[in-house]
Amino acid sequence: MALIVQKYGGTSVGSTERIKNVARRIAKWKAQGHSLVVVLSAMSGETNRLIALAKEIQETPNPRELDVIVSTGEQVTIGLLAMALQEIGLEAKSYCGWQVKLTTDSAHGKARISSIDDEAMRADLDAGRVVIVAGFQGVDENGAITTLGRGGSDTSAVALAAALKADECQIYTDVDGVYTTDPRVEPEARRLKTITFEEMIELASLGSKVLQIRSVEFAGKYKVRLRVLSSFEEEGEGTLITFEEDESMEQAVVAGIAFDRNEARINVKGVPDRPGIAYQILGPVADANIEVDMIIQNVGDHGATDFSFTVPRGEYNKALSILRDVQTHIGAAKVEGDDKVAKISIVGVGMRSHCGIASTMFRTLAEEGINIQLISTSEIKVSVLVDEKYLELAVRVLHKAFGLNQKISA
Amino acid sequence: MALIVQKYGGTSVGSTERIKNVARRIAKWKAQGHSLVVVLSAMSGETNRLIALAKEIQETPNPRELDVIVSTGEQVTIGLLAMALQEIGLEAKSYCGWQVKLTTDSAHGKARISSIDDEAMRADLDAGRVVIVAGFQGVDENGAITTLGRGGSDTSAVALAAALKADECQIYTDVDGVYTTDPRVEPEARRLKTITFEEMIELASLGSKVLQIRSVEFAGKYKVRLRVLSSFEEEGEGTLITFEEDESMEQAVVAGIAFDRNEARINVKGVPDRPGIAYQILGPVADANIEVDMIIQNVGDHGATDFSFTVPRGEYNKALSILRDVQTHIGAAKVEGDDKVAKISIVGVGMRSHCGIASTMFRTLAEEGINIQLISTSEIKVSVLVDEKYLELAVRVLHKAFGLNQKISA
Repeated sequence: MALIVQKYGGTSVGSTERIKNVARRIAKWKAQGHSLVVVLSAMSGETNRLIALAKEIQETPNPRELDVIVSTGEQVTIGLLAMALQEIGLEAKSYCGWQVKLTTDSAHGKARISSIDDEAMRADLDAGRVVIVAGFQGVDENGAITTLGRGGSDTSAVALAAALKADECQIYTDVDGVYTTDPRVEPEARRLKTITFEEMIELASLGSKVLQIRSVEFAGKYKVRLRVLSSFEEEGEGTLITFEEDESMEQAVVAGIAFDRNEARINVKGVPDRPGIAYQILGPVADANIEVDMIIQNVGDHGATDFSFTVPRGEYNKALSILRDVQTHIGAAKVEGDDKVAKISIVGVGMRSHCGIASTMFRTLAEEGINIQLISTSEIKVSVLVDEKYLELAVRVLHKAFGLNQKISA
Repeated sequence: MALIVQKYGGTSVGSTERIKNVARRIAKWKAQGHSLVVVLSAMSGETNRLIALAKEIQETPNPRELDVIVSTGEQVTIGLLAMALQEIGLEAKSYCGWQVKLTTDSAHGKARISSIDDEAMRADLDAGRVVIVAGFQGVDENGAITTLGRGGSDTSAVALAAALKADECQIYTDVDGVYTTDPRVEPEARRLKTITFEEMIELASLGSKVLQIRSVEFAGKYKVRLRVLSSFEEEGEGTLITFEEDESMEQAVVAGIAFDRNEARINVKGVPDRPGIAYQILGPVADANIEVDMIIQNVGDHGATDFSFTVPRGEYNKALSILRDVQTHIGAAKVEGDDKVAKISIVGVGMRSHCGIASTMFRTLAEEGINIQLISTSEIKVSVLVDEKYLELAVRVLHKAFGLNQKISA
């Protein structure tokens, strides 16, 4: 008899038929005696349709008014699900963000949640009703509608779970959990039964787009038990996202392998080694709104240094031309780059206590003749940049080298 | 420098192009120094689309949840108009019903307005902003979204005008005002510059569907100056709906001629004349949810009476079969009817002080050989039921007989 918050994404509620399926799934949980709060996204495609409509009026839509418009998508699905539940004999009640006082700051389009009033929801739950809440939306102190940004429904669900002290927050999506790597690249990739928050954050930011990263951070902060499940499979327990502290003993050294094809490398060589030089190089790039990912600075010869970083592939030419201007300005020897590169990362909290993980990675790649262009490390992650053509091979050999093929995940 | 509430219907905001046109029209009023509050309907077709979606889930959608869903239509248009105004350099801010605390009872789908909080709107108006409010929707005491029923945006506009003590409430629609009769039947029908509230109510209920009747009643109650205008014409002052008290001296005797083809007549003859007989006849009809319009009881012979009434044509057969059961029960001589009839009404507040209006109507029809089947009168209206085939002829000769062709309306 747990209190469970469930979140269903746009694909799961993409048609009235699918909404009826969600209702049947909820009925099963209810039949087991659980109390349920359900958070919904808009029907898939609806948010984009609304944004397109707004752009017909204003090229850059006013953020306050855009939130008024796009928040209607979730408002439709919550009403439809409430009806679908009533239709199969369950009492249910829908709430918009403002109706549960899901209060945020006033940063329209990317608002941050500050508080939630659980009183009305509690009363409904006590009366045996399924509570349905519109994801992605809130209300600011002035009573204006706000939205939390793309994927914000995940964050809504976690925030509601935290406010209600729910036993579990279940995120239903179109994948059945978090995998050791992308199964399209490595068919032997396996679903993880558990993963730590920290690993999840690293994997999410590296391209395993199962959960919105903010929702994972939120869950970590408020210690919300979070589970990723498939909304299209009847069985399956998905992947539980745990607190490292609880279960670190059982963790595998490497939890998974992430990769990103959307990378381009830029090298600035023979840079005079003096204070402020990194800012002089990266400042103009940041000013052009180009996001920089890996940043590496090597010691060079004769008081000069080599500076490398990666940018999204689509911004490569723009970044290169900015850097050519910078080159003259700072007196660097050379600017060059490559947009046919890929980033591969091994992630695992076990790395902290295990030596030699990085060297196993480098050896494995060397044995296949894969040259490493850049290396960047964090506490629980090692990332390397390689020639794009080696991406699949590199993922497969690393997957095997770290025992992910065989491992029964913790 | 007046405070004006303007309402634009679904056709007027049916596309982003049309919304831009509305913005330009508002800009003209603003340029004249007026303060503006604008009430919008959903884009035409949108409310029906949302209802259809709900009906895919529930044949009879839950009223609370249906209101959650259908109220999104207006929420989209208010955001779009705010953007369109900003795009042409005007400051504007949108409000949902709950954001101006447009409080109603909890009768979902047909809620009645009890109060409005004008504080935020006043502040915006003082700051020179155009205030945009979603029509058709409100919020009940428990914070649930309610809607006011079809055409409820007219009522929203009048209620806002009353709350803000606006100088005028302008209803923009796809006709340019109220006519002496339907121009499709009488090409010489002319637009009335003014009409009284009472006449408007009689004309509206008789089929001149320019304004939602509730909004007219509301305007009468709160003495809101109401004007109907075309949103597709640049010029034109529409029709002003006035208070009889102000301008009764100038009123024409007959303001207009309304008609209704959707009528069927039922006669119950030889009814024993005893107390309660009307209820015994009409009770079962009401129980079957059939709306009864004209009701006439004549004195008959030998302690019996004749009883006639009209019902919507689509309910004719159902009503007839109910009455055949009733006939046996009450011991009436005969039940008969006709579903090829039409109702024609002359409406005018001047009737009160002018004798002979009804007899002019009867004589005019008699001169054309048009037989009158039923007559029903109220203080400012005379209605007759005639064979449907005479409808056009009757409207035309009456239009002429009461000087509506030539008259320069008051």
